[in-house]
Amino acid sequence: MKTLIKDAAVVRPDGTTAQASIAVDGTRIAAVGAVPEGFAADEIIDGKDMLAVPGFVNAHTHASMTLLRSYADDMELMEWLNNHIWPVEAKMVSDDIYWGAALAAVEMIKSGTTTFADMYGPFMERVADVVAQSGMRGVLSRGIIGVAPDGEKKIEENVTLYKDYHGAADGRITVMFGPHAPYTCPPDFLKKVARAAQQLGAEVHIHMNETRAEIAQIEKQYGKRPFAYVEETGLFESGTLAAHCVHLDDEEIAIMKKHHIRVAHNPGSNMKLASGTAPVPRLREEGICVALGTDGASSNNNLDMLQEIQLAALLHKVTSYDPLAVPALEALKMGTEYGAEAVGLKDVGRLEAGAKADITLVSMKGAAWCPRHNEVSLLVYSGSAADVDTVLCDGKILMRHRALQTLDEEKILFEASRCAARLTR
Amino acid sequence: MKTLIKDAAVVRPDGTTAQASIAVDGTRIAAVGAVPEGFAADEIIDGKDMLAVPGFVNAHTHASMTLLRSYADDMELMEWLNNHIWPVEAKMVSDDIYWGAALAAVEMIKSGTTTFADMYGPFMERVADVVAQSGMRGVLSRGIIGVAPDGEKKIEENVTLYKDYHGAADGRITVMFGPHAPYTCPPDFLKKVARAAQQLGAEVHIHMNETRAEIAQIEKQYGKRPFAYVEETGLFESGTLAAHCVHLDDEEIAIMKKHHIRVAHNPGSNMKLASGTAPVPRLREEGICVALGTDGASSNNNLDMLQEIQLAALLHKVTSYDPLAVPALEALKMGTEYGAEAVGLKDVGRLEAGAKADITLVSMKGAAWCPRHNEVSLLVYSGSAADVDTVLCDGKILMRHRALQTLDEEKILFEASRCAARLTR
Ligand SMILES: [Zn+2]
Ligand SMILES: [Zn+2]
Repeated sequence: MKTLIKDAAVVRPDGTTAQASIAVDGTRIAAVGAVPEGFAADEIIDGKDMLAVPGFVNAHTHASMTLLRSYADDMELMEWLNNHIWPVEAKMVSDDIYWGAALAAVEMIKSGTTTFADMYGPFMERVADVVAQSGMRGVLSRGIIGVAPDGEKKIEENVTLYKDYHGAADGRITVMFGPHAPYTCPPDFLKKVARAAQQLGAEVHIHMNETRAEIAQIEKQYGKRPFAYVEETGLFESGTLAAHCVHLDDEEIAIMKKHHIRVAHNPGSNMKLASGTAPVPRLREEGICVALGTDGASSNNNLDMLQEIQLAALLHKVTSYDPLAVPALEALKMGTEYGAEAVGLKDVGRLEAGAKADITLVSMKGAAWCPRHNEVSLLVYSGSAADVDTVLCDGKILMRHRALQTLDEEKILFEASRCAARLTR
Repeated sequence: MKTLIKDAAVVRPDGTTAQASIAVDGTRIAAVGAVPEGFAADEIIDGKDMLAVPGFVNAHTHASMTLLRSYADDMELMEWLNNHIWPVEAKMVSDDIYWGAALAAVEMIKSGTTTFADMYGPFMERVADVVAQSGMRGVLSRGIIGVAPDGEKKIEENVTLYKDYHGAADGRITVMFGPHAPYTCPPDFLKKVARAAQQLGAEVHIHMNETRAEIAQIEKQYGKRPFAYVEETGLFESGTLAAHCVHLDDEEIAIMKKHHIRVAHNPGSNMKLASGTAPVPRLREEGICVALGTDGASSNNNLDMLQEIQLAALLHKVTSYDPLAVPALEALKMGTEYGAEAVGLKDVGRLEAGAKADITLVSMKGAAWCPRHNEVSLLVYSGSAADVDTVLCDGKILMRHRALQTLDEEKILFEASRCAARLTR
């Protein structure tokens, strides 16, 4: 299958947006610029008034939690978890995981996201089903809470998930291990997770340093901060995607650099839950890879990566009193190129020959895009997810002129609403 | 003209969203709830899957500056003003003011805004033309810089604007005086503005305490902080809408309370320009009216009030470490009810019998609105301006199913692009 995106404004890795065509051959980009001689496209997409960017990478979410969107907002974190989120999650059955993830996939594709890194469970095989059917990329991990009585069983589920699905769906599914967080996993348990992951050569996706309270708890319990605590268990040795990293000291940043830890920054969730502002400009200066995630829709409350890109660009300016803190292009890269790097995907996140054809086309026709002095500024500071027109992943068209090609949107919204109603009644 | 909005989820002033119909008779809401007996609607709007909220009030903007959207981003404030914004503004002619404001009106109506408070000039009569034609409400002021050689002339222009347009367009246009800011207006000049405004019984729209640098400058020049400086000129005595108010001390808050000063908070602009975070929770505790504004599109970069509502809800949570700092309903009221109060409009900003029929209907059909546990949460934390479906102002339909009814969108985008290209070439 050969697809030609003709004459779009293409955002190149260097941030320029010259008019160009993108030739897609199979799952990869064959050329950006002039159309290769003899390229016989099966399908041609008109790029007029379209901005082409790499498909967004949502580096941290809990897709099936979308069923709890707007269920419990504006409350203290522990009240929210203990009395609202966890009791409902305990009731979730396999179909809830499926329809919740399918709802998330609908929203993500419609807002231009092609890859998501998910931590949840049980029944992560149902999330894998959604990845396979939707045509997206999924970086899946079984969320493992060590303090729960069935912790060992969850490690086994993550092992099974890895064996069954790592590399599945033409390589669009990859699997990581998902120990939830230092404050929910004791040291011996983290060592077991580390061993299991390393035996398979799997990487780790973990929440780190989200709130001041959990850091204080770890310090009190173990006499050290979370990164030192986790480092000693060996968990960082097989490659780590660390969500949040809001509160960090110098020693922890040194540990992050030593282990090449990649960060999934979640500005929307951190703002809504009042967790704090991650030191993103500092992390970038230190050369640490910073990606963006939405976190779950119950703490965001959407899965709109363009909004995370906008928040990342805005939040760090105001908190550092520096209007250059996170420029527009840097924020966009956090949501695309750095995101792909953070979740361990090579050849994803850049529009250039040889890369995987994960492409989001954004319509520039609306009033918010007028006048067009600078396309990247327009996308980051003025555009909205609703401007996303067409989405390709792995060379396949997932949405065309806002119509989903792989998923039944109406049915999914209906079934997801039904699951949500049953869970919360 | 009688219009019936049938069976929508209507956000009442108390935040409840029970299913109801809204009967509009002429310019006002006749009833919310059951349809009044014998109400013979000329037009019926189906409210199924629609959330009805008061039309958004943009309490601080510079509409014609929309021509400079994306022209100069990610730079230091004075570099931005001196080398990019001011040189282009100096070239603006009457038609630029018109097409810039028309572009702003298109974007505002399409994102659910029915009222805007504008400070700009020259040629503010062209902005008044846009208000008249669009069917929106405009609270217009001539931006007056006292340190410029033509300061006196600008006061005269504001006087003329008031005499010609205050109460015009069936009362949809009101006029304030627009002294730009304490740091651009010397004391004797502010006294002249105060006298001119008071002679007409006009209120004042002014930028106050946006950056730390301007406050330091005023302190150095006059030995007092900006609110004390302005208070002594008498400018606060006829009613004041103060934009920004980012950096305030206790004495200034006392001055604000004494003069019942209303605040136009601009979170997007303050974040993008790295000005700082206004003490909004404190101001609300003190009983001060806090509205929301987008500021100009060259420092935002859009005129999307729902985004400002979202930012207001998120920003103050994270900066105060309080997840309850600005709850969803409070943020929505800042963008509607409190906005109307701030810009001096009675009977606007609430969906209830007797109020002006300024109504925004938001479609809840998209994935980001599923499931529907809480409509106000969904609007504030998950919805987007593109979900705005239908907009009424003063009882007249300005947009229906996203089609503008009063403005020629295509022509306006074309002409605005042409103006912008000429100004910046
Ligand atoms: Zn998370
Ligand atoms: Zn302003």
